[in-house]
Amino acid sequence: MPTSLQDFESVWPRIVGDLEAHCKHYKLPQQSLDWFIKSLNYNTVGGKCNRGMSVVDTASILRGSALTPGTEEYFRAALLGWMIELLQAFFLVSDDIMDSSKTRRGNPCWYLAPGVGMVAINDAFMLESSIYVLLKKHFRQEASYIDMVELFHEVTFQTELGQTCDLLTAPEDNVDLSNFSLEKFTFIVIFKTAYYSFYLPVALALHYTGAATPKNLQTALDILIPMGEYFQAQDDYLDAFADPEVLGKIGTDIQDNKCSWLVNQALNKVNPEQRKILEDNYGQKNSAKEAKVKELYNELKLAEFYEQWEEERVADLRSKIDKIDESDGLKKEIFEVFLQKIYKRSK
Amino acid sequence: MPTSLQDFESVWPRIVGDLEAHCKHYKLPQQSLDWFIKSLNYNTVGGKCNRGMSVVDTASILRGSALTPGTEEYFRAALLGWMIELLQAFFLVSDDIMDSSKTRRGNPCWYLAPGVGMVAINDAFMLESSIYVLLKKHFRQEASYIDMVELFHEVTFQTELGQTCDLLTAPEDNVDLSNFSLEKFTFIVIFKTAYYSFYLPVALALHYTGAATPKNLQTALDILIPMGEYFQAQDDYLDAFADPEVLGKIGTDIQDNKCSWLVNQALNKVNPEQRKILEDNYGQKNSAKEAKVKELYNELKLAEFYEQWEEERVADLRSKIDKIDESDGLKKEIFEVFLQKIYKRSK
Repeated sequence: MPTSLQDFESVWPRIVGDLEAHCKHYKLPQQSLDWFIKSLNYNTVGGKCNRGMSVVDTASILRGSALTPGTEEYFRAALLGWMIELLQAFFLVSDDIMDSSKTRRGNPCWYLAPGVGMVAINDAFMLESSIYVLLKKHFRQEASYIDMVELFHEVTFQTELGQTCDLLTAPEDNVDLSNFSLEKFTFIVIFKTAYYSFYLPVALALHYTGAATPKNLQTALDILIPMGEYFQAQDDYLDAFADPEVLGKIGTDIQDNKCSWLVNQALNKVNPEQRKILEDNYGQKNSAKEAKVKELYNELKLAEFYEQWEEERVADLRSKIDKIDESDGLKKEIFEVFLQKIYKRSK
Repeated sequence: MPTSLQDFESVWPRIVGDLEAHCKHYKLPQQSLDWFIKSLNYNTVGGKCNRGMSVVDTASILRGSALTPGTEEYFRAALLGWMIELLQAFFLVSDDIMDSSKTRRGNPCWYLAPGVGMVAINDAFMLESSIYVLLKKHFRQEASYIDMVELFHEVTFQTELGQTCDLLTAPEDNVDLSNFSLEKFTFIVIFKTAYYSFYLPVALALHYTGAATPKNLQTALDILIPMGEYFQAQDDYLDAFADPEVLGKIGTDIQDNKCSWLVNQALNKVNPEQRKILEDNYGQKNSAKEAKVKELYNELKLAEFYEQWEEERVADLRSKIDKIDESDGLKKEIFEVFLQKIYKRSK
């Protein structure tokens, strides 16, 4: 039985308390402490916490029984999960500035909140630093401590490389489809999303339960990275083809010049006249032009192509999961649970 | 004999090569790799490298003879020095955005360089991440590896706390002298500057030479943090009282609403009418108002007060240095060299 958001969120105040105590030890003036705590709560809490909760769920599967909320064992797994949420908060606060976004989780982006502005950049840094304060406080005595520190370093750098490639490949103000390619799409997806969203939670749970052998980590990577690719392709498909009522938002990838799975597949299929349609209409804040791109997507039968591609990818993932050697403590169920949440989702 | 900037800079291309190789291993697309390397060179090289070079100089003193340029021993000490320069580059790229600065080291700030903009935020992150890539590649096998990683984490967080306090205490657009205090001045100086500029180079050199006993680290801290305070008070004094021809720049602390040593000392000495002069004239982009503040500084005899205060602080530092126990490998000369560079400097 997966953990609930309510149980997961119930450990957050203790985490804030730890960070507060750390700052008080430094004699941080009260005004600055209040600011930091406000930023921590505003930017870290309020999302779905899928990544963070999957650390708890994966640890439960690896242990063979659900971790019990209220126990120290639950707290420590959830704490690792909250570190992923802090890492994501660090990225989102800064991505929102870089993308000139307006809202996040129904509120103004932090940099647009009253009295914040560019101070948000330093606040993002402190969200990242909090990860290492917490790791040191709670895991310093563990054999896996340095491995977990290095894991966060590596995944952070990978995500930054993915962000660099994304920003250079698809700037909102300079449409150049010749800059797109499926190779770049794949790099961006794997580095910007898959490592921290799919691999990191499972790798942390493996370290936490003492099952992080090199072989288990490699098996997790070999399944979760293609799963992350599949997830993002699906996200891009839903952006254009899902019912906005069901999806809960209106897709903007075409107008935002995103280097999406769909446009890259389209670029692979177009004839010269169709390419001209893409060149003339992609990446512009104009709904008539967006409609022309969608018309072309339909003409190229991209929805059908995606649906067939999805079946192949899911079959491939299932076959990889089936072949997992569970003798060193890894469990097929971890990956089945991830795949179940993704396959045929409509939002 | 201290190392030269030329020798220190000669190891930089190898460091860039290491980071390039790391990115190529990830198959980072060429356009992104070129961008990262451009950011590395633009933002890390071209300063005086006092902090970085002091790692080499301190290691030489601890070893008892100058490290020889071209040797692996020199390279590894200089590499630790360049990590401080990378940390500083991370701070400066982002501080320049937060402060709306225009130029840095005679060039446009990175975020104002052609085609950069807010992507600079992600570039700053990658400068920070580079530290841990390099530490892992070159120091993973050392007993002090995790201590050095934790040292960078702690100093980074301390600097961010100092920056938070500075941004909240002295926003350029909201002058409120009641928000200033010598306590906040001291917190900002110690956290934003002293830890990474004074303590970090010596602590790294102690780890590098195997002399990082808790006692030696504590002694270094007890001397270098007050030395950093003294250095910043001196910097603030020079900003108002030095000859701009000699200083090499025109002081702007009064117009920029800086929480400087001088204004805090002034606030301690003023009568109600003098306080009104400060309230009416501090922190405004107006040279007539700036002149009125300077007139008040003269009336309060702040220059003379500083000069006497300096003598007391230097005497106190010398007495602390004299008392150093060298039996565990620490050397008085390390601190004498630092103090020599600062005392009675005119720029």
